[in-house]
Amino acid sequence: MSVHLRPEEIEARSFAMIEAEVGAHPWSAVEWPVVRRVIHTSADFEYARSMVFSSTAIAAGVAALARGRGIVTDTTMALAGIAKPRLARFGIQGSCFVADPEVAQKASSLGITRSILAMRKGAADPGNGIFVIGNAPTALFELIRLIREEHMRPDLIVGLPVGFVGAAESKAALVELEREFPDLPFITNRGRKGGSNVAAAVVNALLILAEENS
Amino acid sequence: MSVHLRPEEIEARSFAMIEAEVGAHPWSAVEWPVVRRVIHTSADFEYARSMVFSSTAIAAGVAALARGRGIVTDTTMALAGIAKPRLARFGIQGSCFVADPEVAQKASSLGITRSILAMRKGAADPGNGIFVIGNAPTALFELIRLIREEHMRPDLIVGLPVGFVGAAESKAALVELEREFPDLPFITNRGRKGGSNVAAAVVNALLILAEENS
Repeated sequence: MSVHLRPEEIEARSFAMIEAEVGAHPWSAVEWPVVRRVIHTSADFEYARSMVFSSTAIAAGVAALARGRGIVTDTTMALAGIAKPRLARFGIQGSCFVADPEVAQKASSLGITRSILAMRKGAADPGNGIFVIGNAPTALFELIRLIREEHMRPDLIVGLPVGFVGAAESKAALVELEREFPDLPFITNRGRKGGSNVAAAVVNALLILAEENS
Repeated sequence: MSVHLRPEEIEARSFAMIEAEVGAHPWSAVEWPVVRRVIHTSADFEYARSMVFSSTAIAAGVAALARGRGIVTDTTMALAGIAKPRLARFGIQGSCFVADPEVAQKASSLGITRSILAMRKGAADPGNGIFVIGNAPTALFELIRLIREEHMRPDLIVGLPVGFVGAAESKAALVELEREFPDLPFITNRGRKGGSNVAAAVVNALLILAEENS
């Protein structure tokens, strides 16, 4: 009975079930733990086909976490889903500015989303390098604009907004960006699915890789 | 371009797309806003078929929220996903005890999950009535035990744990419980899928129904 299993045992058993159901897959030895954790979090095997990693994503993301670079999320949910003991181990500061009073006030006066201004505020602090989007396509479009127009060079983008208006388009635009910026580190997926839980799962998987490397 | 739509416009457009894609469905006028918000949050149309509402769920849940009954979640993520201004409007206290030091210490000494003890702690406070599970099957199994063995009578259970070990089984056990307790208010789904984001979406949909009623 599952009630009597320890959390590590439940996770190991879950991973074995995922491996068995997925079977042969195209993911590398460092991409697979990320994809597997996303499936573990969502119970959705669509991610076994829809995830996208830029060529530099895992190495750059793991290195940035190991260096203690700050994480900025677009939702408090994504921030809540990232394992705090793992952040503490690397001295990583996690931030979400979407409920920040200054952000709310500026968004209202400029007539743009709080998600856009939350990214802008996060990007303005040079201690931040990892940008995690689990909800708002506008946040991901803003990161793309900051890279193109303001020479922002993030250590990693985890771009997994969800939804029916703009989510798939924002992720397709991120994937396209690799042609212009071949070294841009990003992890995303194709289609409408995504979410704060899935975005947090990607970060947690990278934190575990960083721990295994250290 | 979605960047220039206001959040209300994005939501309205998303809901229209969901309605068009779902087509005819079996949900009542008060169940459908809940199912629709779950699909909106997950971009997963499987929920249009897999959600389960007990006969008393919506009326009891909305009434409990309107009375300001406390909410207990099994994850900080689910708590983070519930709209704080809506909770404040009804004077609702939201709590998650999974990281509570007393819970962690007892879990370790008793050799059971923190999720079980977090539910037990939440249930011990008579101000709490709404129990929201987005992750841990053990938390949902514990609620079922409290109802059967300790005469707990929750105002509402939102039981949407996710995963490969125990999640589907815990939800099936909850559905079975309606035979013994025909008035038990619960909202759940069939299968492995679920999650803190989906559980929070259910609560948010009910809070909106409570606002519309008030």
